[in-house]
Amino acid sequence: MATGKINVSVENIFPLIKKFLYSDHEIFLRELVSNATDATLKLKHLTAIGEAKVEYGNPIIEIKVDKKGKKLHIIDEGIGMTEEEVKKYINEVAFSGAEEFLNKYEDGGKDTGIIGHFGLGFYSSFMVANKVEILTKSYKDEPAVHWSCDGSPKFTIKKGKKENRGTEIILHIADDSTEFLEDHRITELLKKYNKFMPIPIKFGTKTETLPKPEDAKEDDPAPTKEVDNIINNPNPAWTKQPTDLKDEDYSAFYRELYPMQFEEPLFHIHLNVDYPFNLTGILYFPKLTQDLNIQKDRIQLYQNQVFVTDNVEGIVPEFLTMLRGVIDSPDIPLNVSRSYLQADGAVKKISSYITRKVADKLNSLFKNNREDFEKKWNDIKIVIEYGMLSEEKFFEKAEKFALYPTVDNHYFTFEELQGKIKDTQTDKDDKLVVLYASDKEAQHSYIEAAKAKGYEVLLMDSPIIAHLMQKLETSKEKLSFARVDADHIDNLIKKEDTQISKLSDEEKDKLKANLEEVIEDKSYTIQLEAMDSDAAPFIITEPEFMRRMKDMQKTGGGGMFGMGNMPDMYNLIVNTNHELVGEILNTKTAKKRERLINQSIDLARLSKGLLKGEELTNFIKRSYEMVK
Amino acid sequence: MATGKINVSVENIFPLIKKFLYSDHEIFLRELVSNATDATLKLKHLTAIGEAKVEYGNPIIEIKVDKKGKKLHIIDEGIGMTEEEVKKYINEVAFSGAEEFLNKYEDGGKDTGIIGHFGLGFYSSFMVANKVEILTKSYKDEPAVHWSCDGSPKFTIKKGKKENRGTEIILHIADDSTEFLEDHRITELLKKYNKFMPIPIKFGTKTETLPKPEDAKEDDPAPTKEVDNIINNPNPAWTKQPTDLKDEDYSAFYRELYPMQFEEPLFHIHLNVDYPFNLTGILYFPKLTQDLNIQKDRIQLYQNQVFVTDNVEGIVPEFLTMLRGVIDSPDIPLNVSRSYLQADGAVKKISSYITRKVADKLNSLFKNNREDFEKKWNDIKIVIEYGMLSEEKFFEKAEKFALYPTVDNHYFTFEELQGKIKDTQTDKDDKLVVLYASDKEAQHSYIEAAKAKGYEVLLMDSPIIAHLMQKLETSKEKLSFARVDADHIDNLIKKEDTQISKLSDEEKDKLKANLEEVIEDKSYTIQLEAMDSDAAPFIITEPEFMRRMKDMQKTGGGGMFGMGNMPDMYNLIVNTNHELVGEILNTKTAKKRERLINQSIDLARLSKGLLKGEELTNFIKRSYEMVK
Repeated sequence: MATGKINVSVENIFPLIKKFLYSDHEIFLRELVSNATDATLKLKHLTAIGEAKVEYGNPIIEIKVDKKGKKLHIIDEGIGMTEEEVKKYINEVAFSGAEEFLNKYEDGGKDTGIIGHFGLGFYSSFMVANKVEILTKSYKDEPAVHWSCDGSPKFTIKKGKKENRGTEIILHIADDSTEFLEDHRITELLKKYNKFMPIPIKFGTKTETLPKPEDAKEDDPAPTKEVDNIINNPNPAWTKQPTDLKDEDYSAFYRELYPMQFEEPLFHIHLNVDYPFNLTGILYFPKLTQDLNIQKDRIQLYQNQVFVTDNVEGIVPEFLTMLRGVIDSPDIPLNVSRSYLQADGAVKKISSYITRKVADKLNSLFKNNREDFEKKWNDIKIVIEYGMLSEEKFFEKAEKFALYPTVDNHYFTFEELQGKIKDTQTDKDDKLVVLYASDKEAQHSYIEAAKAKGYEVLLMDSPIIAHLMQKLETSKEKLSFARVDADHIDNLIKKEDTQISKLSDEEKDKLKANLEEVIEDKSYTIQLEAMDSDAAPFIITEPEFMRRMKDMQKTGGGGMFGMGNMPDMYNLIVNTNHELVGEILNTKTAKKRERLINQSIDLARLSKGLLKGEELTNFIKRSYEMVK
Repeated sequence: MATGKINVSVENIFPLIKKFLYSDHEIFLRELVSNATDATLKLKHLTAIGEAKVEYGNPIIEIKVDKKGKKLHIIDEGIGMTEEEVKKYINEVAFSGAEEFLNKYEDGGKDTGIIGHFGLGFYSSFMVANKVEILTKSYKDEPAVHWSCDGSPKFTIKKGKKENRGTEIILHIADDSTEFLEDHRITELLKKYNKFMPIPIKFGTKTETLPKPEDAKEDDPAPTKEVDNIINNPNPAWTKQPTDLKDEDYSAFYRELYPMQFEEPLFHIHLNVDYPFNLTGILYFPKLTQDLNIQKDRIQLYQNQVFVTDNVEGIVPEFLTMLRGVIDSPDIPLNVSRSYLQADGAVKKISSYITRKVADKLNSLFKNNREDFEKKWNDIKIVIEYGMLSEEKFFEKAEKFALYPTVDNHYFTFEELQGKIKDTQTDKDDKLVVLYASDKEAQHSYIEAAKAKGYEVLLMDSPIIAHLMQKLETSKEKLSFARVDADHIDNLIKKEDTQISKLSDEEKDKLKANLEEVIEDKSYTIQLEAMDSDAAPFIITEPEFMRRMKDMQKTGGGGMFGMGNMPDMYNLIVNTNHELVGEILNTKTAKKRERLINQSIDLARLSKGLLKGEELTNFIKRSYEMVK
């Protein structure tokens, strides 16, 4: 038996980097700017604790493109490196460098935001460059160093010409990567990854207009000056304390995050916790549409102000991925599989913390300004309803603020609704029947019929509402939901008292026979009912159970398998107490009777939105004739 | 000045691997199975050329989970390694190992499908294991070797106990990766990445029912036996010659690719080219719905039968990403940015090759079996129309097979359509007017009016059709499209002859005043027209230009900015030659006249689908009264 050390020779590092960098090559810039930031923050820390006896000043990081020379420069005014340090951190691909530093200044590590993987990130530059130079001067009183390497194992190192403290990385961009010599591409990358990093990043200059001097003539052009073009906001809102921020600051930050978004967010939630995990961030509720899918992936995940990803699946509970904003946490493991992430204890805690914070915020918004909350309800309900369905804890909390709007724009909590309708809408079996409509326009006549009885009708128009009703029915006792067009209103909420039919049983049989003669369509089940003589003579209804199962299948999950393909089933309810029905019965000519029945049923179908195409055209023709 | 060699020491390789493996850890298994496959194919090659004097046999790769011992085994019967080779390929992280091999047997390299990155893939196992062992015996007459390493730089190497040729990798799964000890997880990964790799992969066994022996009694249970559970299909359809495959084979392969897909594909396209680039694959046309977005990312990209990704953006032209199937090419650069991919010459050639093949196939389907092609048209038109809009070359080719169906289910090419309608539908300015409907049901009465004139009406109901019409109008001369409800039919196709109005100018003024008195809604522009007395008395129309601009904006691009938010504009066309209009004019009582006008206009609005909610309920009530 022998033992040895695995020898990773230098021939290997470049293919290794290229092979395993599955994500886009563009991240080299993020890595280099991260290094520059670390080098600056290290200096800040050392001057703060008196270890470095130099002036910290107002250091920036500068990016320069030299298109002609095919070079990209990344220049910082940070800690710099001595020759010894270059050898240690660069030549040894010293992944442990920053860790050593961290150990030494452990207490200060967190505050200064040191990430710590200098050499590692540095080598990603060889993805886009065929030669890399480092020009660096340490804050210590030592000569500058000039290191260079052409991607082969060999490097050269010599004294360098550099007056100022800091490090300059010069990338000689390879021919297959010239996109990184385009100003717009560099701007795009800096905006994507470095928009909120803590040291100012300069990329070029811009012209700023100055105020005119007081003695200027009217025709004089306003003076201008060239100023540094700073790409980033080093102090983004989420790094500040909520008490230091006003509503305008949150709005301004929203526009910073989503410059193309013209609509204001509805409200925000500032996240700020440091035990048992570290998490800061701001979440915004945007106006949401009915479409569940298209609005995901808008929350951005940062780690110490460096952009990581906009896929927060597994970290944020699914129903909240429709929100927008920023989450920043060093405690979220990044390079692990989704299934590991979902099983990770810290991540679970983060997810339930976010859920709780969102529920608390919604509750306080509801309590403190109910009117405003009601106004926003239609734009946020989809998230809340989805959350109630998918997270049991959220369902419990939402009892307090989830609203049930009526077709007349009154907003009730479920408890309030119960109080309001329990006297009128409890049926003879002691069941509370909640009536609802899914479309105020299409179900107008049915809503009117329910309102005429003094009933409340909710407007439930979310795509997942069928699932939520199902959940409410099973979690509460003696409760059922019924859509207003599911049956005629006296059948939806059955009371003890029954209407007396004007027709004898014989007449009923005759009427049924008359109707069946004319109606060929067997999907209508004829149902004779003694109703108010004022109610409509003919009503088409669609039984609740089957329709709801179909609705549930459409939005996935629930329902009963295969029901989605069943044909639609309707009942034709005939009001035996209506004058017109009596007239039909008394009409002697078959032709005239047929015409009466057809026109009546067409009107009932029209009311339910079922009269279309050729049938509608024929109905309209017939009606024009009857108008004359 | 000094020069030196960058020293990447072994302490560094593990953090490097962990850091840069942005994609999921799960790919370790793909890498190890790829290595096992390479080792087997190398042996096959060496025996084939007589270099290895051993029996190749029927080697398989076996995966075994030892849940209790927390171990995962990957066992091949391939070339194996001698002690010297282990030192060279494993201890040196020898990325160049396979390349050396390739250089030596260059000619044979392609056919045997050697990928070649043994050591590199091997080290990815440390993402999930805290200790890895290799037990290997070379095909050469040398003792077996047992190597082991616990993730620290140190390894041990000794003589091993192994009788059979080949290599066994033993991963001691780390505590944060126990998911990889679950059978279902391993099955999932093997099915995802290795489903079509060229060497059979065994994972466990399964019970197979054998036919009953002839002398068995009726009650005897059918005999069973345990057989290897082979995960993959080593010879997937796309690696075969089209001439060796029947339609059933293509259908069977479709089900292999999409086991959850119950619908048959409409047809397939076998891709097979080896110059100037290497590409094989099979594309399928599935039945497509109207939704452009949800059906993307179904084409799978392979490299020498190893699954790479299901995101083929940039490789396949965008309009074809709605198809399904497989593309296999070693010529597509993988680890590069999208923008580089799109600029790459080889990729451009691949993309236009695919476009051409698809167009040729469509053309031959159309020519060889037009009836069948017409039947499938509605399920494929979205791809073709999208392609005509986005790829100029495809637009030209599609002239031959793109179909324009009428509301009566006749299918014309554009040329045929032109021939059919040029005599009847050329207007007085010599412009050919193509009439179309977007919804047969909703526009029924307008379609009928056009058909009464002997015109053809196309059914154009794709979401992007407005864009395509715009393109056709600009690419052909003297052509315009008009929806049947854009104006009254005599105005849509203006002829020299004009109808004479029964009304005098005075009567017209009076009629207009009467109408304006009743109609409060200012969004209707009243337009008196002398039409056939048989035509409808009132018609509501929606001018083409504005409506089409709005439609175009809805589906993105085109249109005119801001038009999407303009209110809908309608014309109310009054047929001055209709009896009912005369009656309105002659009615003396204002109340009766108002009732006539209201009912008439409601009928016109109903015909255009504009009567809803309360207005519809009122209309129905009024109509029930008029029925009596």
